[in-house]
Amino acid sequence: MRASQLFFPTLREVPAEAELASHRLLLRGGFIRKLAAGVYSYLPLGYKVVKKIEQIIREETDAVGGQEILMAALEPAELWQETDRWNVDVLFKLEDRAGRWHGLGITHEEVVTDIVRRDVRSYRELPLNLYQIQTKFRDEPRPRGGTIRAREFIMLDSYTFDRDDAGLDLSYRKMYLAFARSFARCGVDFIVVEAEAGPIGGKENQEFTVLAPAGEDRVLLCDRCDYAANAERCEIGDRGYEPSAEPQKPLEIVETPGMKTVEQVTRFLEVPAQKLVKTLIYIADGKPIAALIRGDRDLNEPKFSRSQGVARLEMAGPDTIRDLTGAEVGFSGPVGLRGVRLVADYEIRSMANFVTGANRADAHMINVNLGRDFTVDEWADIRAASDGDPCPKCEGTLHMERGIEAGHIFKLGAKYSDAMHATFLDEDGKEKSHIMGCYGLGVSRLLAAVAEVSSDKDGMIWPISVAPFEVTVLLLNPEDEAQARAAVRVYEELQERGADVLLDERDERSGVKFKDADLLGIPIQVVAGRLSAEGKVEMRLRRDKRARQLSLDEAADEIMAVIAAQNRLLLDAADRYSMEFSQL
Amino acid sequence: MRASQLFFPTLREVPAEAELASHRLLLRGGFIRKLAAGVYSYLPLGYKVVKKIEQIIREETDAVGGQEILMAALEPAELWQETDRWNVDVLFKLEDRAGRWHGLGITHEEVVTDIVRRDVRSYRELPLNLYQIQTKFRDEPRPRGGTIRAREFIMLDSYTFDRDDAGLDLSYRKMYLAFARSFARCGVDFIVVEAEAGPIGGKENQEFTVLAPAGEDRVLLCDRCDYAANAERCEIGDRGYEPSAEPQKPLEIVETPGMKTVEQVTRFLEVPAQKLVKTLIYIADGKPIAALIRGDRDLNEPKFSRSQGVARLEMAGPDTIRDLTGAEVGFSGPVGLRGVRLVADYEIRSMANFVTGANRADAHMINVNLGRDFTVDEWADIRAASDGDPCPKCEGTLHMERGIEAGHIFKLGAKYSDAMHATFLDEDGKEKSHIMGCYGLGVSRLLAAVAEVSSDKDGMIWPISVAPFEVTVLLLNPEDEAQARAAVRVYEELQERGADVLLDERDERSGVKFKDADLLGIPIQVVAGRLSAEGKVEMRLRRDKRARQLSLDEAADEIMAVIAAQNRLLLDAADRYSMEFSQL
Repeated sequence: MRASQLFFPTLREVPAEAELASHRLLLRGGFIRKLAAGVYSYLPLGYKVVKKIEQIIREETDAVGGQEILMAALEPAELWQETDRWNVDVLFKLEDRAGRWHGLGITHEEVVTDIVRRDVRSYRELPLNLYQIQTKFRDEPRPRGGTIRAREFIMLDSYTFDRDDAGLDLSYRKMYLAFARSFARCGVDFIVVEAEAGPIGGKENQEFTVLAPAGEDRVLLCDRCDYAANAERCEIGDRGYEPSAEPQKPLEIVETPGMKTVEQVTRFLEVPAQKLVKTLIYIADGKPIAALIRGDRDLNEPKFSRSQGVARLEMAGPDTIRDLTGAEVGFSGPVGLRGVRLVADYEIRSMANFVTGANRADAHMINVNLGRDFTVDEWADIRAASDGDPCPKCEGTLHMERGIEAGHIFKLGAKYSDAMHATFLDEDGKEKSHIMGCYGLGVSRLLAAVAEVSSDKDGMIWPISVAPFEVTVLLLNPEDEAQARAAVRVYEELQERGADVLLDERDERSGVKFKDADLLGIPIQVVAGRLSAEGKVEMRLRRDKRARQLSLDEAADEIMAVIAAQNRLLLDAADRYSMEFSQL
Repeated sequence: MRASQLFFPTLREVPAEAELASHRLLLRGGFIRKLAAGVYSYLPLGYKVVKKIEQIIREETDAVGGQEILMAALEPAELWQETDRWNVDVLFKLEDRAGRWHGLGITHEEVVTDIVRRDVRSYRELPLNLYQIQTKFRDEPRPRGGTIRAREFIMLDSYTFDRDDAGLDLSYRKMYLAFARSFARCGVDFIVVEAEAGPIGGKENQEFTVLAPAGEDRVLLCDRCDYAANAERCEIGDRGYEPSAEPQKPLEIVETPGMKTVEQVTRFLEVPAQKLVKTLIYIADGKPIAALIRGDRDLNEPKFSRSQGVARLEMAGPDTIRDLTGAEVGFSGPVGLRGVRLVADYEIRSMANFVTGANRADAHMINVNLGRDFTVDEWADIRAASDGDPCPKCEGTLHMERGIEAGHIFKLGAKYSDAMHATFLDEDGKEKSHIMGCYGLGVSRLLAAVAEVSSDKDGMIWPISVAPFEVTVLLLNPEDEAQARAAVRVYEELQERGADVLLDERDERSGVKFKDADLLGIPIQVVAGRLSAEGKVEMRLRRDKRARQLSLDEAADEIMAVIAAQNRLLLDAADRYSMEFSQL
């Protein structure tokens, strides 16, 4: 391809709308354009990267027995109702001219289960792995980071069907391998963490997370064992907290006019935040409930919900809090609080003489003590793990990192097949429910993740496997005959050898060509400049700017060797996962 | 691929929901499955065909300078409003959680023009051809024929941007060629016809129609010249009709109790339908208007609208007709009809002493005559052309055929760029509007069109270029060692040579394998049966069932030669269009 024919509108200015480096670079390099909040179009170079990512994940999913299909995005409400998911918050819904409702597919468990219940009736047709690479829709409240959290995005979603749990375990491991190899081939490091299942549900699930400071997911990693979990999921457990030996002091009410936050109260009372217990009031499936946690901790809402078996958890509003406690928000406390179930984090057990709200305007209690002043209805692990917390699996310490969740795999079991009566006839003549797994890999999110971790201040640094071109030949001065001849020769010889190559023969200054080449992030740059008169070109690697002079006679072969070596590195990384897997 | 691993749920029974042969065969062969009215999922074999069609049209569009992008399906209402298309009837609309409205993309003129107005500001960046292959949505009132008229479908849509009309002409011809070559390579014959532009608009447009008796489009073809038009568009023109020489008889009112249809009235009055003039009352942009056409003719509503410059044309309801004529539906006539504009088809000019409604219940007029009894406000070409009509371009005769519109190309000019202020700076320093073209090719509709024209009672007969597999090797008895060895050898040798081949090694009766092979329509069948003991297999062509015995040693090479020959035929057909084009 010649750059003069290519539509790649690069931007010199930093777009104001973009917070993240990846988002800025994808806009500046002319890879994507915004259409609406969280809705993007992919321009030629961006879509080339997307197609290369798609082809890698297609090959890897095929390799573990996946069969590619394409399901519809317009999913009838009736199907969602069968599994009680029609009210999933982020579903875009629309009514057709006949008054029938549809949800725009954010996931396809119902559709694929409907296909399978009609067409797969015998154990002899199992296991089955059906997958698609498709545009998904999500009525996201907070679109963010370009294609990282979008309202329309491209995803691979795979669904496996097995006779039993042993079959599911194998299918799940195969898809784990397909995902691990896909990430490796795309040139991104990742970690696999325990995670929240969200509205997909199921028994067990893991996320593939690309570590990046700009990621919106927080993950906790043990410094000793291989425990790793999304902060939403990360367990702390009952660490065997002993009651405090501190002598109990008399309970007192103190005036704290206008002091509502932990910081205000503790500074006013001159105590550390560890001496305060927060009383957070929620409505859980319609009933009031309070979470008690230490002043310097955050509540982990998913863990809190899960511990209480709650389907719908909402923070109580100011009116509800006034009705329940008799005071404004900021003055709630457990002492004398009636009609509200009290769930306390295990850690509270070891506290004594602590501060709480007094359930009265502008007042707190000090020297509050368990047992004497109030009793807890249930102890639970409900606080958010944080940097420095102990590992729940060993004696190690957790440290926190940020990351981008780019893949998520689930053991669903019979959740969907039971709800939708998707059964098969097993060898023993009995009707059984299909045992399912599902596996999602965000293609457009992976694009952004690569951009986030594989770039520098000058632009993108694409891994060779997903680069929009493998090589760009910069013809610095198209008027110079020696340069033109050298550039075209290398360009054509590379094309003959099967390389994906761009020739920048535009009528632009050299500086523009160098800047654009860096911005586009094509991994190998070949410069046809003054050296061309001596029958040479310069090859530079985008990643480290290392440069080498090549004679024109050997240039194409040398460059092909570099392409092969870069590809080999990525394949070797993928093959290491296959080796690990074969040893399992 | 081995058939035992492939998900292709064939059906023995003819599905009740399907009227058309293509729809039945695509369901029976396990290519597609219905999710809702006009909404389908593509199973592995159907999606393989789709991907092969996509790759062909991608290559052909790339070859004429197209650059592939992917635009979003969620198109903000504001963009549609800029071009006054937010109220297009078939647009699916949805509201997001923030209360903003979006239309689900049925076409992308607005989105692509928005990209271009922001990023293409100089004549030096033109011409530009951006295209995508994408899922589209359409709130179709009458989904029909499986993927022929669907509510969710796959389409290639290309948009060209030029400096001027001469540039557009060239871009249009290039895309014409890309489409012609695409159809030829997919193995379908087509005709190109003049057509209605519909809500896309523009100055000139043509449809690529696949002739098929089951098609819902009617096209008229001249038997002498190359005139061809969709019946919605087909011109007749003012054929220079002379007033009748027949002496005028006195006007009379006759009682026609309960006679409302042309057939009832003419039978009752014992006159031919050619002696009656129908008075069809419409509301055109809010005002009443009547179309007068001969009793045996049909009104062509698009031509009628166009002749009157009408944006919205609706048939008048019974109440409106009663208000305007004083009578029930079925008794309207032009004589004495006030407040209704009268537009008559040219053909009426040569009629005399004809029958019309009397604007009175149960009565008609006979011996009505032009000039004497009423005057026409405007003469126009408003009737539908039909089989046997004269050609508007030569002395030939039109004959009617049915077809499936699978492509539609438009010269838009500045319609969208003017509305959206999409301008560029031309060489002369002036701001000018981009001159646009747009080009749509229905991928899923082409799938159905191929199925409609390339099949027989036993199943599909895929052209080699889009077949789900090029070859299927039928291992009749997997228990027979000679057969198994022969089948696997041919299968593996074909794979080594790069063929796309299926091995049917299932534990099924031979009859099932033969029936499935015919149903799947893979163009080359190789049978490893009794002949295997003699070191032979049989090769059969699906199209004509011609069979040849091949020795195992030569089988793979012979089959590769047949594949190459079949592909060559399709490429030759495509190349003939390139030759024609290069002579233009």
